[in-house]
Amino acid sequence: MKPKRELWLADQVGIRGIELYIPKLYINQKDLETFDNVEKGKYTIGLGQDEMSFCADHEDITSICLTVVSKLLKNYDLSAKDIGFLCVGTETLTDKSKSVKTSLMKLFEENSDIEGVDVKNACYGGTQALFHAIDWIYANWELEKRFAIVVMADIAVYDAGPARCTGGAGAFAALVGPNAVLSFERGLRATYMVDVYDFYKPNQPVPSEYPVVEGQASLQAYLTAVDEVYKLFCQKAEKLRNEVVNISDFDAMFFHCPFTRLVQKAFGVLAFADFKRGLSNHLTDTIRAKPSAFLLQPRELNYMSRDFAKMTAQISAKLWAQKTEPSPIDNTLGGKRLLFFSYGSGAAAAMFSARILILEKDTRDQCTQIKQSANAAVALLEERLCVHPKRYNEILALREKLLSSAAPYRPEGVRNNLTDEFSLFPNTYYLMNIGDKYRRYYTQTSS
Amino acid sequence: MKPKRELWLADQVGIRGIELYIPKLYINQKDLETFDNVEKGKYTIGLGQDEMSFCADHEDITSICLTVVSKLLKNYDLSAKDIGFLCVGTETLTDKSKSVKTSLMKLFEENSDIEGVDVKNACYGGTQALFHAIDWIYANWELEKRFAIVVMADIAVYDAGPARCTGGAGAFAALVGPNAVLSFERGLRATYMVDVYDFYKPNQPVPSEYPVVEGQASLQAYLTAVDEVYKLFCQKAEKLRNEVVNISDFDAMFFHCPFTRLVQKAFGVLAFADFKRGLSNHLTDTIRAKPSAFLLQPRELNYMSRDFAKMTAQISAKLWAQKTEPSPIDNTLGGKRLLFFSYGSGAAAAMFSARILILEKDTRDQCTQIKQSANAAVALLEERLCVHPKRYNEILALREKLLSSAAPYRPEGVRNNLTDEFSLFPNTYYLMNIGDKYRRYYTQTSS
Repeated sequence: MKPKRELWLADQVGIRGIELYIPKLYINQKDLETFDNVEKGKYTIGLGQDEMSFCADHEDITSICLTVVSKLLKNYDLSAKDIGFLCVGTETLTDKSKSVKTSLMKLFEENSDIEGVDVKNACYGGTQALFHAIDWIYANWELEKRFAIVVMADIAVYDAGPARCTGGAGAFAALVGPNAVLSFERGLRATYMVDVYDFYKPNQPVPSEYPVVEGQASLQAYLTAVDEVYKLFCQKAEKLRNEVVNISDFDAMFFHCPFTRLVQKAFGVLAFADFKRGLSNHLTDTIRAKPSAFLLQPRELNYMSRDFAKMTAQISAKLWAQKTEPSPIDNTLGGKRLLFFSYGSGAAAAMFSARILILEKDTRDQCTQIKQSANAAVALLEERLCVHPKRYNEILALREKLLSSAAPYRPEGVRNNLTDEFSLFPNTYYLMNIGDKYRRYYTQTSS
Repeated sequence: MKPKRELWLADQVGIRGIELYIPKLYINQKDLETFDNVEKGKYTIGLGQDEMSFCADHEDITSICLTVVSKLLKNYDLSAKDIGFLCVGTETLTDKSKSVKTSLMKLFEENSDIEGVDVKNACYGGTQALFHAIDWIYANWELEKRFAIVVMADIAVYDAGPARCTGGAGAFAALVGPNAVLSFERGLRATYMVDVYDFYKPNQPVPSEYPVVEGQASLQAYLTAVDEVYKLFCQKAEKLRNEVVNISDFDAMFFHCPFTRLVQKAFGVLAFADFKRGLSNHLTDTIRAKPSAFLLQPRELNYMSRDFAKMTAQISAKLWAQKTEPSPIDNTLGGKRLLFFSYGSGAAAAMFSARILILEKDTRDQCTQIKQSANAAVALLEERLCVHPKRYNEILALREKLLSSAAPYRPEGVRNNLTDEFSLFPNTYYLMNIGDKYRRYYTQTSS
């Protein structure tokens, strides 16, 4: 018999439940092309963008986190005492000191013993929060027997200009614990961090929600990162598992998505990396596409080259379709292997993998609830309000006004009684008021 | 023989090395009393403050973190490849997106595979960063065999008024790993988190380094937190180790210190908590001090009562002297047990404990280097410049000017060629320039 210590150790740590919250407003990117008076297809085909979510001035980072965590607690029938760790990854700051996590404590009134605060690094905070949660379970499950929650949320808005169409808003919450239906492969976590100013939100004389964006630097940093973490991921797989992996070994691949077309480029970079490693049986058209022509060219040039992008799209065409297509959530997912790439400017990136395990009642039940939650989130997408870009700009101006107004301040959405574009889905938290000394007060729409 | 897995597991995870950086400038609190035209002893006796560190406009959160981490790498003879995790806890933000951690990567050019970004929650970020590092070692040591670094740093400045004397500036870095000389007791980690606005740094129309402070709310929150985490800590000790602890079981106690007098109050609250639990053999003067008179009074009233503070000071007088006095760092520390209380507004608090283990060459060597580093840091305190409060205000005004100036901007300290009050210690990083688009550039003084 194994010693007791071993039996108590957490295993198959990963995601046991998810919830998603997408705000009620969106714009159609075709409308935005017309409105911005740019070439037709610039956003929709050039960048691969279809729609963009956003919220008015009565939702903020705290309210969307409250919304998604309250959904998770309810739908997964969790009591406050089941949770021992909760961590929020975000770069949408309304306060430089108070963490969003402390504001979420109002959802856990029966249990104040919950570790974790906020994790900050551009789009990467959520991934690091997930890693912290996984490690917390490995390190503490034996003694705590409680679960962890990770929240990843941002309201991304850009100043008028070419980047505005790459915004978005949403919140994701995951329940993390052992024996998870989505179990991360231990040790297969490759990180790449460097000091770069590709996208940032510096202190400035006039505060702004908008970042400084260096478009070209950001593309380079993203593609360099995916190249580097994949190399390291392959090394770790070989060292720890004696396994030579290539991109066809994963049933699905998930990328941080600044815009869709960049993800396709990144996928191509990975295919080319496999080719360089002498692994090309899973690639297509390698004779005609001539990837070898790019072997001696510096990778910085390759990343920016249209010919390189065309070549990698060609050799990875079949895999791209297979590995990034949506898939129904059901028991046929059992055994599937997933690869994740996360990137946050500054820059921080990671690649890591997971297995879907649907083995017994526990994991089957997790799968069932995840399916329900995912379907509900997708169904809500259909109930959103499509807003004209002109109105979008007006609503962003309301967010700017809120930021530049002295307290107390009541958001326009509240002054309009949550009507028309200010209406919200049921059970949604919102910012009721910015009171004296800039304290923010929240309440919830009815169910 | 134990199974291999067990042998590889990390044990006695804790602090194997420390470095401290305190800036070169300070004011004497007696001078500040005179300058502020307040009652003599208000800061020095009433709050228990002696001196306050600060820095001019050419040091910022990134520069002081660079300084302390570069010291740690050098003094502990660490190469970039020894490190697998580095996390920064701070509430001093110069950027809402880019993490300080990514800026520190320039110290690790041979290794970009280092997990961790920034952790934010008032004064608590550093503690949470430490917990993340400990958990990272427990979860990953088996496969990674690399160490973690935790950085805790802040530049705390307050607007003119009663809180200004409670500022301070400094950076601390710790090397975390298994078999540590300061080994945290596993499972004895009690957390208390609630949603409260006692001290915060909200988005405002005019940016400011200064927080909003609710003095009374903050004192209440701090004392409630120490009371609650101690209760929970005792419960966990009983549950996990079948041990009934009281404050005399620890050889030294460490508190988050907004100002010294509040720590003494908190210590008294713990003594009273022991008394309430029926444990009073270690307390003094319990007959005359009559702690029982306060048993039925709501704790909120006790916290604010002078009589209560007097009573708790009386019953804990001997222990206060014993447990909070400085102690030389040497082998006689072996076996000593330490208790820590951390608090950050918002609010997040924790109590946790550690043992000093000086068993064989590895831990003895750690102890020797820690002693050297601590002594060097203390020696540097004596080489600081005492600045008059009038000049302090002028220098804070320079920091305000930097914050409100459009880029590019060269700090006054640099324009003055690091002379007089702008001089820095050797090997100190500083902000050379805020360049185009608010990018910050750093360099280092010579050794």
